[in-house]
Amino acid sequence: MHPPVALVGNLGTDDEVRYLAALSAAMPEECVRPFRALTEMERATVEVAVVANSDPAEVARLPRLAWIHSLWAGVERLVRDLGAGAPPIVRLVDPELARTMAEAVLAWTYYLQRDMPAYRRQQEAAMWRPRAYRAPADTTVGLLGLGALGAAAAHRLLEAGFRVAAWSRSAPSATARAALPPIVTCAGPDALPDLLARSDIVVCLLPLTAETRGLLDARRLAAMKPGGALVNLARGPIVVTGDLLAALDAGHLSHAVLDVFDAEPLPAGSPLWRHPDVTVLPHVAAPTNPVTAAAVVAGNLRAYRATGRIPASVDTARGY
Amino acid sequence: MHPPVALVGNLGTDDEVRYLAALSAAMPEECVRPFRALTEMERATVEVAVVANSDPAEVARLPRLAWIHSLWAGVERLVRDLGAGAPPIVRLVDPELARTMAEAVLAWTYYLQRDMPAYRRQQEAAMWRPRAYRAPADTTVGLLGLGALGAAAAHRLLEAGFRVAAWSRSAPSATARAALPPIVTCAGPDALPDLLARSDIVVCLLPLTAETRGLLDARRLAAMKPGGALVNLARGPIVVTGDLLAALDAGHLSHAVLDVFDAEPLPAGSPLWRHPDVTVLPHVAAPTNPVTAAAVVAGNLRAYRATGRIPASVDTARGY
Repeated sequence: MHPPVALVGNLGTDDEVRYLAALSAAMPEECVRPFRALTEMERATVEVAVVANSDPAEVARLPRLAWIHSLWAGVERLVRDLGAGAPPIVRLVDPELARTMAEAVLAWTYYLQRDMPAYRRQQEAAMWRPRAYRAPADTTVGLLGLGALGAAAAHRLLEAGFRVAAWSRSAPSATARAALPPIVTCAGPDALPDLLARSDIVVCLLPLTAETRGLLDARRLAAMKPGGALVNLARGPIVVTGDLLAALDAGHLSHAVLDVFDAEPLPAGSPLWRHPDVTVLPHVAAPTNPVTAAAVVAGNLRAYRATGRIPASVDTARGY
Repeated sequence: MHPPVALVGNLGTDDEVRYLAALSAAMPEECVRPFRALTEMERATVEVAVVANSDPAEVARLPRLAWIHSLWAGVERLVRDLGAGAPPIVRLVDPELARTMAEAVLAWTYYLQRDMPAYRRQQEAAMWRPRAYRAPADTTVGLLGLGALGAAAAHRLLEAGFRVAAWSRSAPSATARAALPPIVTCAGPDALPDLLARSDIVVCLLPLTAETRGLLDARRLAAMKPGGALVNLARGPIVVTGDLLAALDAGHLSHAVLDVFDAEPLPAGSPLWRHPDVTVLPHVAAPTNPVTAAAVVAGNLRAYRATGRIPASVDTARGY
């Protein structure tokens, strides 16, 4: 019998029950227990923690922790909170998460391509005015980020007939390139302005790192195509909010769909809530699915039990 | 040299220029002229008219007309306006039209599945509240109509992972069935309540005929799943507007997306404009593409010139 696996995090009662049930069903050979249900003696034995919205103080109270499995793909807060001495962090790479995110990319791309915000405004004015239809074949979607999520999004957009171009911070590896559909890609800071200038809709799927924080600032937003739109489904601080509002107010950009923010929940006083050209979403683009996430965690944990090797973990210097 | 082909219809200057250019490019061997640019002598020779929003009085002034090619798929107004003695009417069956309509079906299905109207309302109240995600695999879309448009929509929805069920007025022919993806289909008035009860989202793609006028009345809407939503991209009079408003007000249905209405443009006084659970669109789901439509017209006209046989035309008794 292995020591218990700790579920650490501030999940809310419903989600905690859901995750416990899914993890127990996916790996009946393990004993998964919420952190607060562990005795001090048990805590001293825990080698693996599954974490979501975790409190770093709780993680610090697991002295034999060998590694941490995040239930989310984005781990920048975890990396920051746990600091330099933390055990290796394994982030969630769940095909279902990539599917859900790719679906969100297509759904919000249609929202913009089909002029849904403009028709909404016309409806408020009881105005009947058909707008020129722009076919996907005449619409370029520029993806920022070409990891598992970006590749899945590129496939969905191409299937739907959109023109897709993509940018990543560094050139994708041969393996990553093999997973990509045949699209134009470019890499590195110098290539970004051209990608932005070609895209009718820019979709951000980047991880938040020291490199990407504030990436979309006044200068980069000015490089976007006039009338272009931005969809940020990644992390709030990648976009400089004040610069985005200025670009919208100046009429340079037509619309922004934002699922992520500098502070979440978005404070009630934020001007984003009431800006006519901003769609605010409460971080719902790609919620983790407890059942499929638990299967991924179980697979990683079984490999660890069998081999003693910790699964591929986050490079905390790069931050993802 | 054949007699000129008349372009008959109230298209607006921009669209008339666009259609004339596209038709002339697609069939340079023909002389396509707007009705008003034809002399009385020329009018007496015209055998084929290409029509859109046509004035029946103009069609009546073409005494040798052998057949009419509609630029649109929906011909119920043309059939009604021209009356019993009219020449055969060929309606537009354009693969690009089916593609555009299937795209509209998927885009507005995502609009509902991704809770866009609810998030819009929450944004108006500066309310941060993630709603439960409903995966396409747990969402049944019920298609009404299984012609070329319905079949194309079924393919797109299945690719996106939705559960699809479909209903048609009569059982599809063997040829039509062969074009369908593997979905559950049913036919005839008796099968309709069950399809409505199973569907989270009902999408109407039916032609307007004596049989379908008023089809979705209070009784049929009551058969829909509680909390279900309706998307009408076909013709307004298929849905009884008063009954739909009552079903929304009673909370039985959650939302309606309407692209078509009893009268178009929708009168400014219509309660649909300001209903919080109705999305009003100005008949924009699947606009005819002049270039691809002209290619279809050219193909039909060439076959006619070569064989003297009029292409398959509308059964005016059935109305489509």
